[in-house]
Amino acid sequence: DLLTDLSEDQLATYRSTQTAPDGFDEFWAETLAEAAKHDIDVRLSEVETGLETISTYDVRFRGFSGQEVAAWLRVPAHATGPLPAVVQYVGYGGGRGHALENLLWASAGFAHLQMDTRGQGSGWSLGVTADEAPAQPQVPGVMTRGILDPATYYYRRMFTDAVRAVDAARSLDTVDSSRVAVVGGSQGGGNALAVAGLRSDLAAVVAFVPFLSDFPRALRVTESYPYKEIIDYLVVHRPDVEAVHRTLQFFDGVNFAARATAPALFSAALRDTVCPPSTVFGSFHEYGGEKEIEVWPYNGHEGGGIFDEERALRFLRGRLGDA
Amino acid sequence: DLLTDLSEDQLATYRSTQTAPDGFDEFWAETLAEAAKHDIDVRLSEVETGLETISTYDVRFRGFSGQEVAAWLRVPAHATGPLPAVVQYVGYGGGRGHALENLLWASAGFAHLQMDTRGQGSGWSLGVTADEAPAQPQVPGVMTRGILDPATYYYRRMFTDAVRAVDAARSLDTVDSSRVAVVGGSQGGGNALAVAGLRSDLAAVVAFVPFLSDFPRALRVTESYPYKEIIDYLVVHRPDVEAVHRTLQFFDGVNFAARATAPALFSAALRDTVCPPSTVFGSFHEYGGEKEIEVWPYNGHEGGGIFDEERALRFLRGRLGDA
Amino acid sequence: DLLTDLSEDQLATYRSTQTAPDGFDEFWAETLAEAAKHDIDVRLSEVETGLETISTYDVRFRGFSGQEVAAWLRVPAHATGPLPAVVQYVGYGGGRGHALENLLWASAGFAHLQMDTRGQGSGWSLGVTADEAPAQPQVPGVMTRGILDPATYYYRRMFTDAVRAVDAARSLDTVDSSRVAVVGGSQGGGNALAVAGLRSDLAAVVAFVPFLSDFPRALRVTESYPYKEIIDYLVVHRPDVEAVHRTLQFFDGVNFAARATAPALFSAALRDTVCPPSTVFGSFHEYGGEKEIEVWPYNGHEGGGIFDEERALRFLRGRLGDA
Amino acid sequence: DLLTDLSEDQLATYRSTQTAPDGFDEFWAETLAEAAKHDIDVRLSEVETGLETISTYDVRFRGFSGQEVAAWLRVPAHATGPLPAVVQYVGYGGGRGHALENLLWASAGFAHLQMDTRGQGSGWSLGVTADEAPAQPQVPGVMTRGILDPATYYYRRMFTDAVRAVDAARSLDTVDSSRVAVVGGSQGGGNALAVAGLRSDLAAVVAFVPFLSDFPRALRVTESYPYKEIIDYLVVHRPDVEAVHRTLQFFDGVNFAARATAPALFSAALRDTVCPPSTVFGSFHEYGGEKEIEVWPYNGHEGGGIFDEERALRFLRGRLGDA
Amino acid sequence: DLLTDLSEDQLATYRSTQTAPDGFDEFWAETLAEAAKHDIDVRLSEVETGLETISTYDVRFRGFSGQEVAAWLRVPAHATGPLPAVVQYVGYGGGRGHALENLLWASAGFAHLQMDTRGQGSGWSLGVTADEAPAQPQVPGVMTRGILDPATYYYRRMFTDAVRAVDAARSLDTVDSSRVAVVGGSQGGGNALAVAGLRSDLAAVVAFVPFLSDFPRALRVTESYPYKEIIDYLVVHRPDVEAVHRTLQFFDGVNFAARATAPALFSAALRDTVCPPSTVFGSFHEYGGEKEIEVWPYNGHEGGGIFDEERALRFLRGRLGDA
Amino acid sequence: DLLTDLSEDQLATYRSTQTAPDGFDEFWAETLAEAAKHDIDVRLSEVETGLETISTYDVRFRGFSGQEVAAWLRVPAHATGPLPAVVQYVGYGGGRGHALENLLWASAGFAHLQMDTRGQGSGWSLGVTADEAPAQPQVPGVMTRGILDPATYYYRRMFTDAVRAVDAARSLDTVDSSRVAVVGGSQGGGNALAVAGLRSDLAAVVAFVPFLSDFPRALRVTESYPYKEIIDYLVVHRPDVEAVHRTLQFFDGVNFAARATAPALFSAALRDTVCPPSTVFGSFHEYGGEKEIEVWPYNGHEGGGIFDEERALRFLRGRLGDA
Repeated sequence: DLLTDLSEDQLATYRSTQTAPDGFDEFWAETLAEAAKHDIDVRLSEVETGLETISTYDVRFRGFSGQEVAAWLRVPAHATGPLPAVVQYVGYGGGRGHALENLLWASAGFAHLQMDTRGQGSGWSLGVTADEAPAQPQVPGVMTRGILDPATYYYRRMFTDAVRAVDAARSLDTVDSSRVAVVGGSQGGGNALAVAGLRSDLAAVVAFVPFLSDFPRALRVTESYPYKEIIDYLVVHRPDVEAVHRTLQFFDGVNFAARATAPALFSAALRDTVCPPSTVFGSFHEYGGEKEIEVWPYNGHEGGGIFDEERALRFLRGRLGDA
Repeated sequence: DLLTDLSEDQLATYRSTQTAPDGFDEFWAETLAEAAKHDIDVRLSEVETGLETISTYDVRFRGFSGQEVAAWLRVPAHATGPLPAVVQYVGYGGGRGHALENLLWASAGFAHLQMDTRGQGSGWSLGVTADEAPAQPQVPGVMTRGILDPATYYYRRMFTDAVRAVDAARSLDTVDSSRVAVVGGSQGGGNALAVAGLRSDLAAVVAFVPFLSDFPRALRVTESYPYKEIIDYLVVHRPDVEAVHRTLQFFDGVNFAARATAPALFSAALRDTVCPPSTVFGSFHEYGGEKEIEVWPYNGHEGGGIFDEERALRFLRGRLGDA
Repeated sequence: DLLTDLSEDQLATYRSTQTAPDGFDEFWAETLAEAAKHDIDVRLSEVETGLETISTYDVRFRGFSGQEVAAWLRVPAHATGPLPAVVQYVGYGGGRGHALENLLWASAGFAHLQMDTRGQGSGWSLGVTADEAPAQPQVPGVMTRGILDPATYYYRRMFTDAVRAVDAARSLDTVDSSRVAVVGGSQGGGNALAVAGLRSDLAAVVAFVPFLSDFPRALRVTESYPYKEIIDYLVVHRPDVEAVHRTLQFFDGVNFAARATAPALFSAALRDTVCPPSTVFGSFHEYGGEKEIEVWPYNGHEGGGIFDEERALRFLRGRLGDA
Repeated sequence: DLLTDLSEDQLATYRSTQTAPDGFDEFWAETLAEAAKHDIDVRLSEVETGLETISTYDVRFRGFSGQEVAAWLRVPAHATGPLPAVVQYVGYGGGRGHALENLLWASAGFAHLQMDTRGQGSGWSLGVTADEAPAQPQVPGVMTRGILDPATYYYRRMFTDAVRAVDAARSLDTVDSSRVAVVGGSQGGGNALAVAGLRSDLAAVVAFVPFLSDFPRALRVTESYPYKEIIDYLVVHRPDVEAVHRTLQFFDGVNFAARATAPALFSAALRDTVCPPSTVFGSFHEYGGEKEIEVWPYNGHEGGGIFDEERALRFLRGRLGDA
Repeated sequence: DLLTDLSEDQLATYRSTQTAPDGFDEFWAETLAEAAKHDIDVRLSEVETGLETISTYDVRFRGFSGQEVAAWLRVPAHATGPLPAVVQYVGYGGGRGHALENLLWASAGFAHLQMDTRGQGSGWSLGVTADEAPAQPQVPGVMTRGILDPATYYYRRMFTDAVRAVDAARSLDTVDSSRVAVVGGSQGGGNALAVAGLRSDLAAVVAFVPFLSDFPRALRVTESYPYKEIIDYLVVHRPDVEAVHRTLQFFDGVNFAARATAPALFSAALRDTVCPPSTVFGSFHEYGGEKEIEVWPYNGHEGGGIFDEERALRFLRGRLGDA
Repeated sequence: DLLTDLSEDQLATYRSTQTAPDGFDEFWAETLAEAAKHDIDVRLSEVETGLETISTYDVRFRGFSGQEVAAWLRVPAHATGPLPAVVQYVGYGGGRGHALENLLWASAGFAHLQMDTRGQGSGWSLGVTADEAPAQPQVPGVMTRGILDPATYYYRRMFTDAVRAVDAARSLDTVDSSRVAVVGGSQGGGNALAVAGLRSDLAAVVAFVPFLSDFPRALRVTESYPYKEIIDYLVVHRPDVEAVHRTLQFFDGVNFAARATAPALFSAALRDTVCPPSTVFGSFHEYGGEKEIEVWPYNGHEGGGIFDEERALRFLRGRLGDA
């Protein structure tokens, strides 16, 4: 019929065809080990925002290759004692945004570290972090930047930044390092899944309508950007189909999910053509930790929106406790 | 050339051709007097949101014809003593939204009353307030609901609600009634201008890319909704062109602006096709109080977005003072 | 494959999953009984059109809650003796139109009563009838007006008007009350099916590509308006999915069809994305009376157009006889 | 500003730059003389439509080169004595349509001859008449068929058919040959203007939003089909710009209007992008006979629709009298 | 799922439902015999292009009914002795183009005859050849020109031209008549398949993403032009569905493929919505000669582009040998 | 009116408002001096293409910062003695393409060096050259890569590559270094103008519908990509408007044109919305050398297509002479 993707019944039994490539774990172990050679070097400077209930800090830390990555830290004004923390990753094209945006998590009493997105931060929210790497011929965007080799692929650098953001959060006095969660929607959800698969010290994981998940199916069923950037690339780079698929195996949420252990909340939307629900379930079914998923029958890629955040707030309160 | 509308130079000298119809002031005086017969009857009930820095209340008051209108009230948790207040109106199609949204103004230390939008509240944010009135044949939306007569036009009811929301805010113990501002973007900015023209007790007015302003030009130069709803109506209701224009005279921001006295901040965007900058300047040039305007050269109807809000925060701090 | 909907073979065996809710018959019995408390009060006034072969009358009668509903009555000039009558309902967004339009049925010798459409009559043809009822927050259009409760849903009022239009026609001297048919396409066809299920005194029913039929499937397979208004509503009103589906059960053509007894002619078009053919067959297969259906393999929502009308003319001649 | 075309003030003074080429009158005199060598040879056969107030005839006559052209003739049933006649031409892509369509003119008491459109009749209404001529390379449609030479251009054949349709109408017993009007909208209006310029025996001319008028401006200001077919042609046939413009001079309504003498009713719509109002005024200002024009300020190419027809009915009644 | 068409696995087993109509072979035998009554009458005149490595000739020969058809002949400058030849057909809307275009085949050492396309040659490349035949009412384009009867269908004339182009090539001194291949993409591929089925003296056949193949499926699964021209026709010409399908049987690549014997190279693209891959496989699976097919998993109708040509160059070198 | 841009009359007198910034010449002198520190290091390796009339070589040389840049060299097979040379640059998104493409210039007897495009080469033709530089937050594409500072802007690197490609061509034995022309369309034309302004040893310059020309006007009148990438950037990076305009001054064709001395051929198209004709005339009017321009009245960004190339072939033959 005309439905965007599989029905709820079909989603319940669907399984991704994606597999982990040989050397997946070694690749990531080496990547993170290389990054760990660089001191995390977190620097905070308070920002005058005009807000009275929230204190805001410009944060810098060292991500992939020790390159500088920016973030915002927001905490309830006058908070004392270590707080549970939410490390948030941003959707495609956006950056950490403006200091006055995204007040929810700090207003709810969490220390909120919102990581910037290297080289993006121009499509709908501001960013300041550069992506330092040679750019082979590519389709506009970052989906095909360096895609012919896992070592040069853009998301190797970004996922490493995301792991390091957890280190940065844990290093803060204001944060209780045993109560750190990662949260994100779309690309941010893809980051959250990657971190969930690469770290064993997370208290919770939240991935709304996650992107970068189940590439084999996504490339078959999606006509929407940003997945379509990869299709556009293959339209011209016809001889590179196999190389591209091999690279993507190293970055697929399906493979990270299988290695994750922290409790997780997912969401999926049945009319989502950007991150079709089957691709979300591709990761969900493989997820190794305790897990739950909210399915929105009439929504597109906006998913549950504020309702997703409301549920995540309850979920995180239950897992991380009060301030 | 291909620019959406007039250049900055042309905007500086442009003047709207709109005029106030005979009986404009009487029409509004009678409308507000009729509403004032109904007690404002503000009812508050606290809502459990999970936020720690903000207290949130479901508000109900009596608007046009004494009909019930909803709102959210957000105040800094543990705030004492009367606060300066921001009464906010919402853009077309939206309602007061979810209790977890729009935390900026309360986080900045203001009492923040966000009024619901009768009969809308479904396009992008939730609402719960009904529009109680017979609906003559109309184009989908509210732009042509009752448009053949000022007495039955939708915005007569909504602007009256907006005036009454100021009364509701002033009636609250937590609010310093001498320091109340009205704020809004797009339709919300149109509401703010209407209230600015109908009340003399406001401390400040903020209207971002205001809608419902300079109808004669808007209907000539715009191809975008929601102004286009009126064009769609006239496409079919060909004999009613004059009646429609006469009704619109009673609701044009240009005519409200000429009667306003409170200091005001406007914004306009040169590539805005929804509320073209010339239509904004139509009201700005007539505005009777102290005034300033931010012009965004490369933006569309999103205008300055968070930058507009940042400037409004400084503007209101200067006019309303600290909590 | 890429086909819009099911193939002809699949349509032959498809059955809707829609069911009648508890209290369906009581709900409608009470609704019609309430309307019947108001005298039908038909008023006719002849209109000068410039036509020589057709006499035209502006008609007013009392519909839902006794509210005034307009119609056109067209009869062959100089017709004597009671005529067979065609009561026609109009498609979404339109009204009874202009007196010079829709000359077919009167030219064919029928008394032709074309009912106006409350609160619509602006999208493509003129209307003059108001929809008198409070409007809860809704998506532009009428599909979600009052949708949270069967008692407040827009189509409760409209279907009642449609039933009453048959009463109005039967009350006319010029009409042979034993030979009244209901006819309509799209929304008009939905009205015709509703009336077919609510009255047992019809001589024939014609429903071209009927709308408001098989909502469960329509909301799964359609991306087109006006069904999509409901999806747009649920995108924002996420908590109201169940309430909406419950309301729709009371207004689904599938449930009316199961109660119908008059002989009926349907049409469906295989490339119709507005009223997909499967949703039409959903009602057709349940239809309780004698029935036939014309399937147009290459048409969209225009269906058979004038060919549908040509066939309906023969069908009605056969069922209603000559003047 | 953003308006589609010139304002009403500018339209009042606008004059087309089109000129009549040398040999214009000779070209048409010879073309019509050649056609006149063939007997008009009108054949009528009554059609069973099921209508009771109108009698309908399939008509065939000899048009350009004596080729067979079809038409419908509709007359009030039982009409006696010669009737005033309306010869109607059809819009682009359509044909004479179905026998059950277009009942207005006969219902109003006129003999109504609706000419078919050679080689079109597939876009929105049916036709049966062939265009017999070699087709040089062309853009899909008929706008560039044979466009490199006036002698081979499609509209040479069609305008000749249109002139001959008047001959056919005048030859009928049922028609009062002193009371024949030509009527049409869009392409049909272009035909009506051409006939108005080529014959001196018409009682009236009606051209709604006429097409094929003021080509020099149309090709500068229009991005819409069917004018755009010519632009598409020149995009590829770059060396043929001059030849194309020379051909169009022989077919421009501006040049026919200057030669017309019968009283005429025009309409134009200010938001018409298919036949921009300036191009309509290009012909209107040159029109040689008594003339009036209805301007629709908010309509597109639909113009006045049924309101245009209502006015035309009064206009023709005034010029042609009653049956 | 959302894939454009069948998966690779499904394509491997898919079989078209098309069948050859009675009289297929007789129809084509008579058509070609009639054309053969006209001498091929090849005329060459050298063109000054400014190129130094290629000599170019304007070619004219007699095609269907002896009508003049144009072509370009390009040969390596200073070539001696008979060369293997490539006869190329052009895609929909285009013509033989400009003398400076399409230098590949002559640069590769072949005699390259590029046939013009009667009556097209305006959409994206130039043509000069007329289509001489009466045009019944049709949708813009050539897909429905004369479609009610095989004898009058446009492609009867074009396929005959294509067969005659091989005769023209073989008649040239510079061509080795035992080494002639036909090549084309899209409509050109459809022509190549037709010629492959109508001649037994070809050395090789190349059909990239061929059009005019497997009409029964194409009309079910395609929403894209030019197949959609036929759907547009049937939308209006509702009574002619059977006649149209009968005509198409005489022109379907599936039926030509079944009669072909020369070795062939096909290509198909999985995201091709213009010539869906299933329709290509419809012909491929029936193809009677040795055959191979390149499948492009991420491409649309552009197929393999220059990679298809690179493979064709190797394929033809292998089949036709060196100059 | 509705025309895309200025009329031909207005274009004749239009002058760009762009100015050269302080330090323009120093900036470029230093940039090229830095590049010149790296040996050009041209490496050729012959490629087996299957062509018989053209020999093809994969070329590598050192561009900006000594980074490796690829190119194709195509020469007539068996050519002896130094040839005149055409250095060609490619349009936005494309790379040097496939070895079998773009045979025109070598077929015409020139040595043809087609430079690859760093980091692009994926949108419509293949590339292999990387852009080695950190990427600050940017909009997808290269238009805003490093745009906050002339030193980091993408086109600093690309224009330097383009200058170095001339050095590479001149270093070849097969090239007569006194007869080297630069040629390109769109972005390629922008490159050609930049090189024309930076070198005094060119024999001729050809710039079809050049991009990167007259940014102040382009950003006011264009809504099309790739110029729109800059607008998209400023929509989010609101505070950076001045910095962006300052950077663009260093890269505007208007400023390069004023410094150019070689004879030049331009083209412009009146309906070009990608590179509006006024922006082309902005550079043309400033061009310092002998100059001519072809204006296409009905074309968009395709400009003259093969007709532009035909004219360029004659122009270059006249300036560079025969092989």
